[in-house]
Amino acid sequence: MKNILLITALTVGIISVSFLSGKDNEQEPIIASKTITQVAVIVKDINKARNAWAEVLGVKAPEVSVAESHFSRPTLYRGSPSDAKAKLAFFEMGNLQIELIQPLGGKSTWQDYLDKHGEGIHHVAFAVKNIDGVEKKFELQGMPTVQRGGWDGGAYSYIDASEKLGCFLELLENY
Amino acid sequence: MKNILLITALTVGIISVSFLSGKDNEQEPIIASKTITQVAVIVKDINKARNAWAEVLGVKAPEVSVAESHFSRPTLYRGSPSDAKAKLAFFEMGNLQIELIQPLGGKSTWQDYLDKHGEGIHHVAFAVKNIDGVEKKFELQGMPTVQRGGWDGGAYSYIDASEKLGCFLELLENY
Repeated sequence: MKNILLITALTVGIISVSFLSGKDNEQEPIIASKTITQVAVIVKDINKARNAWAEVLGVKAPEVSVAESHFSRPTLYRGSPSDAKAKLAFFEMGNLQIELIQPLGGKSTWQDYLDKHGEGIHHVAFAVKNIDGVEKKFELQGMPTVQRGGWDGGAYSYIDASEKLGCFLELLENY
Repeated sequence: MKNILLITALTVGIISVSFLSGKDNEQEPIIASKTITQVAVIVKDINKARNAWAEVLGVKAPEVSVAESHFSRPTLYRGSPSDAKAKLAFFEMGNLQIELIQPLGGKSTWQDYLDKHGEGIHHVAFAVKNIDGVEKKFELQGMPTVQRGGWDGGAYSYIDASEKLGCFLELLENY
């Protein structure tokens, strides 16, 4: 009787462990990192906005750069080439960047956001490896890429996760 | 002659130092911290959203709590008492919290955002000390408080910085 009880207890234990392991494996994350590297705000006038942010934070207003299509990974908007441009400025915070984006026309998720919502917070960004692979995993889960591009030394992809997560995400890969 | 030169050089030096110090003092920041502690997403269905975020991040879906007026600092919306409620869920990321907010009616900046924009990123939050004092500094710079309240052990204030910074900010003080 003792042996039967022991065997039953062991069997239940083994089945429970297998079941729990199975559950763990099912939840392989799309985003491995738990660090948000950037929060981006769409603005109408980047000069006005960068000076106002600088004043609030008590720091120097950052330089403004221009994002545009780059040969390393030409800009695609919903799968088609785009000549979209935007002015960018970055505040280096303690734990992430605040990015200001002023859309300059052309088809882009930046311009879409400004036209639809006005100014506001457009996305949070995660640093990833193998950006094309991560894009595909999102696509398979019903979160398609709305825009992708690159710059000298890196690549970005905007994921339209608005239906599932309530917002856009940006994937960033530095080469 | 030597003495005159020395005195002149010293005088110029002292004036320069005073001038530079003066410039520094002019830029006293409203927000002393450079750390963003939270990014918040307004969602329509917090159960759906917390499960989707949990799947993307490969973590357990967090518990849902309810935010409502608390005797320690009753909820004010644009200066008037409000019985607004919202469901909240928090993901502890590596460097900050992602907060999901499902408005449950009543006058609030959460409900305003959902009604006006639909789902999206509502604010970034900073931890502050002397929250009432920081609110006043923002108010003086044309960034009024849209909603304030508290919970057992803390206080929050939403600053409408949309005109100047392009988005809402939240101030958080833990007692």
